[in-house]
Amino acid sequence: MSRVQDVYPDDRVSLREVGLRDGLQLVKSFPSTSAKQRWIRDEYAAGVRHFEVGSFLPAKTFPQFADVRDIVKTVAALPGAHGVALALNERGVNEALASSVAEIATVVSATEEHSQANANRSRDSAIANVKRLCELRDASAHKPIVNAAISMALGCSITGPVDPNEVVRLVEKCLEAGVDFVAIADTVGYAGPRQVGELTKAVVRIAGSKPVCVHLHDTRGMGIANASAALDAGARVLDGSLGGLGGCPFAPGATGNVVFEDLVFLCESKGFLTGIDIERLIAVRSILRSEMPDETLYGGLARAGLPRGTSAKAA
Amino acid sequence: MSRVQDVYPDDRVSLREVGLRDGLQLVKSFPSTSAKQRWIRDEYAAGVRHFEVGSFLPAKTFPQFADVRDIVKTVAALPGAHGVALALNERGVNEALASSVAEIATVVSATEEHSQANANRSRDSAIANVKRLCELRDASAHKPIVNAAISMALGCSITGPVDPNEVVRLVEKCLEAGVDFVAIADTVGYAGPRQVGELTKAVVRIAGSKPVCVHLHDTRGMGIANASAALDAGARVLDGSLGGLGGCPFAPGATGNVVFEDLVFLCESKGFLTGIDIERLIAVRSILRSEMPDETLYGGLARAGLPRGTSAKAA
Repeated sequence: MSRVQDVYPDDRVSLREVGLRDGLQLVKSFPSTSAKQRWIRDEYAAGVRHFEVGSFLPAKTFPQFADVRDIVKTVAALPGAHGVALALNERGVNEALASSVAEIATVVSATEEHSQANANRSRDSAIANVKRLCELRDASAHKPIVNAAISMALGCSITGPVDPNEVVRLVEKCLEAGVDFVAIADTVGYAGPRQVGELTKAVVRIAGSKPVCVHLHDTRGMGIANASAALDAGARVLDGSLGGLGGCPFAPGATGNVVFEDLVFLCESKGFLTGIDIERLIAVRSILRSEMPDETLYGGLARAGLPRGTSAKAA
Repeated sequence: MSRVQDVYPDDRVSLREVGLRDGLQLVKSFPSTSAKQRWIRDEYAAGVRHFEVGSFLPAKTFPQFADVRDIVKTVAALPGAHGVALALNERGVNEALASSVAEIATVVSATEEHSQANANRSRDSAIANVKRLCELRDASAHKPIVNAAISMALGCSITGPVDPNEVVRLVEKCLEAGVDFVAIADTVGYAGPRQVGELTKAVVRIAGSKPVCVHLHDTRGMGIANASAALDAGARVLDGSLGGLGGCPFAPGATGNVVFEDLVFLCESKGFLTGIDIERLIAVRSILRSEMPDETLYGGLARAGLPRGTSAKAA
């Protein structure tokens, strides 16, 4: 058994807090390093074990990730916690490797049009980048887990509908390139649960013993329904952000990632034990509110609380 | 084939706008009669055909429903539109019958505790009320459709968890009493999709050829996921309210019914043609905003718009 199955065991659901990366991608003000560290430590105390910590991008353009090395260390210091950092090119990958982060994630666009527009490269070039990342991993001392996410996998902000066969083909290419696991992302929140279920099922089938992550945005209110469909289809790694932090550059006013607290409630209600205490998790929102007062936080559990008679359920 | 199958055919999904009743249950200010009429006519123009129009309750306590007779007439005047009114006791039933509303809905609490606390009567007495309603229907000239909804069917604000066998038993009693169809209601938004799917499946089984309505609240963000599960389990009648209007007396700040626009998007994404134009539906929110400026409106589609390449889909 490889290490990826230790980090993401297939007999339980792993929920990843991606607010510190995806949630901060578009915000105008962002938390201080110490606030990020409290955010992580408080969520850890609530039972969260998987954190996307930031992105290895030029600090000039993305100052919110300038402290990514510190945040990598913060997560690494917590027993059993797992940190993930995004790296999009070889410079970023080398910096990520030097940081000793436990997992490096990279991205391949589902459509040629989005790949060119967003990353100024072809999808073939993005796959070559994935392969290079895997080679650098193999040559590294600590050999981090490598994940490739197919962005726009369920709909593209440029082309609209996306052929699922193309996504499956790209997933196969990433697996051939040597990634430890793959993610499919509904980057702009276009999909409904049937589409998510069908694509997840196809990707789970070709992934074999490797985990499949489904990364969803709640842009059109389908986030939780899509997460439920992904679980039904066999995905066991799901992303979310506290309070649904994060937005969408293509849909002003749209919500961000799936609300993490609600995602925990969904999983528990479906019989998947997450080990996460929802009430303690909700309490962490105060850090986001005080650090980013202009950001709207979402979430049903935070508004309404746990149902009567279930307060001990998620403990 | 009885009339209920004409109004709610089993080969398609019927989405009911319940904002004019359930959505207005708790609001402090409410729309004028003419605004309600515009709300209905504009949604009708967008393709909506099923409207809960109000409740036959004492106008002193519930002034928002004082014009229910006018609203019944507004819906009746629209070809193919179907109006539903709530009536909780014999006085209300007689008034509803006199109004010639096409459907009368009544309620039975899933738990004895809630029945006593909310309606000051036992569940047996509520069932007797259902039976009396069916007798009055049979004796009436226009013989409206009769629906019984089991409130708190998926969790109770007093007892917490609810035994699904009890709900099934109450559904059977209502069917024996002569109702044309039943509804199960997650009145306080306690359930997740697994629970909704399981109960819906059980109720669909005993309902036979009669439709099953699932009435969901989005209190904890599970509304759309639960609606998806209800559809998967065979429900073909779902309730929602424009902008998710309505709240919950037991959870301050909680959202109300499932957001109607998002429900339409969900159904279309699952291949159920609703005949409803989402963009025209979203435009109707302006009536709610101007008539009830203090009410928060929710909804993903209203924030983000239809995905690229799908604008013609729901037309």
